[in-house]
Amino acid sequence: MVRLYHVPLSPFCRKVRLCLAEKRIEVDLVEERYWERDPDFMRRSPAGKVPVLKMDDRTMTESAAICEYVEEVHPTPPLIPQDPGGRYEVRRLVSFFDDTFHQQVTAKLLYERVNKKITGQGYPDSGNVKSGARAIKHYLDLMEALLDDRRWLAGDAMTLADFAAAAHLSALDYISDVDWDRVSNVRDWYAKIKSRPAFRGLLADNVPGFPPPPHYADLDF
Amino acid sequence: MVRLYHVPLSPFCRKVRLCLAEKRIEVDLVEERYWERDPDFMRRSPAGKVPVLKMDDRTMTESAAICEYVEEVHPTPPLIPQDPGGRYEVRRLVSFFDDTFHQQVTAKLLYERVNKKITGQGYPDSGNVKSGARAIKHYLDLMEALLDDRRWLAGDAMTLADFAAAAHLSALDYISDVDWDRVSNVRDWYAKIKSRPAFRGLLADNVPGFPPPPHYADLDF
Repeated sequence: MVRLYHVPLSPFCRKVRLCLAEKRIEVDLVEERYWERDPDFMRRSPAGKVPVLKMDDRTMTESAAICEYVEEVHPTPPLIPQDPGGRYEVRRLVSFFDDTFHQQVTAKLLYERVNKKITGQGYPDSGNVKSGARAIKHYLDLMEALLDDRRWLAGDAMTLADFAAAAHLSALDYISDVDWDRVSNVRDWYAKIKSRPAFRGLLADNVPGFPPPPHYADLDF
Repeated sequence: MVRLYHVPLSPFCRKVRLCLAEKRIEVDLVEERYWERDPDFMRRSPAGKVPVLKMDDRTMTESAAICEYVEEVHPTPPLIPQDPGGRYEVRRLVSFFDDTFHQQVTAKLLYERVNKKITGQGYPDSGNVKSGARAIKHYLDLMEALLDDRRWLAGDAMTLADFAAAAHLSALDYISDVDWDRVSNVRDWYAKIKSRPAFRGLLADNVPGFPPPPHYADLDF
């Protein structure tokens, strides 16, 4: 049995969910209120973070390491190409979204608006929200330029880089923070990835107190 | 020609330097005052971050992706094992040091004490420094426990996980922020890694305005 401890809007959990679903690995999803630091959970994840994946008698943390493991033991369909240059490009983009984009955008918009309320840390900091709103425009424009030359973010094939990006953008879209009208290449790319069977689970998410906007699950958004 | 744009005390740059040196890849080191956002540098690294590695006609960013690339094109000596479980463990630890440890320790001690001054951002925040000083004890204790059962952090062989950890700890040791007396396993482990030829470049670093303590470059510290 494969089991994933997660929270629905975490981009790191979403990336792992997309990866498992694309490879048709059935997974039992368990929501984990990680901020309550339940002792059982802290044993599984000493840093107190989600996702935690139980698979092949391992209890795994760190989404980057989890996705590489899943790719290595379930190589079909491939989410990382074979050549070192292609592999570099996928990993560069995954790191970029999970580090820079995460810090400058996801943490400043999603965590301010949603995570703070859910975890009882009060109201959004308006300076952070403004800074996140500025940064997402900048990075959407960079993605738009990248997608001028490429079908998918890392090249001709869909890869883990697309899932990392879509994990962040889908969580931000859940709170209507993505201006799709700004970037037609990005919108077309997101429409393609959103219509994949692997995406269905994410589109069915519903966080109490934060109903998604109607366009969130609409494939023709 | 291989060229690395770096700053001497950056743990991400140090990890890449260790990786290249262990594989005996000669590299031209160029110090980059990334915070000045020189236009040439920003073209190489749109996120404005170091390290940037020029190699094989590529200009590469994101230290995790760089190290995986170097490992794939120069597999000897190996810094990541062959089996998926071993590879997972190495990557988990690298992510742990570069994410959790970086945020909770390196950013709160090194960046407060050194980077803020160098980049003209004023004085250390004492709350951050206190929090970092508490966190490093906790994580040294976790490393101590891990090294009860293992010769190296990820198992029997030295890997990229050891370099990631040593990159952070060596930078913190440069400002005397590691209490080696607290953790004898960690001290023995660091003595082993510090005595490797690959470490020599790091031990020769000298940041103007921040002379290292005498024990920093002493192999018998």
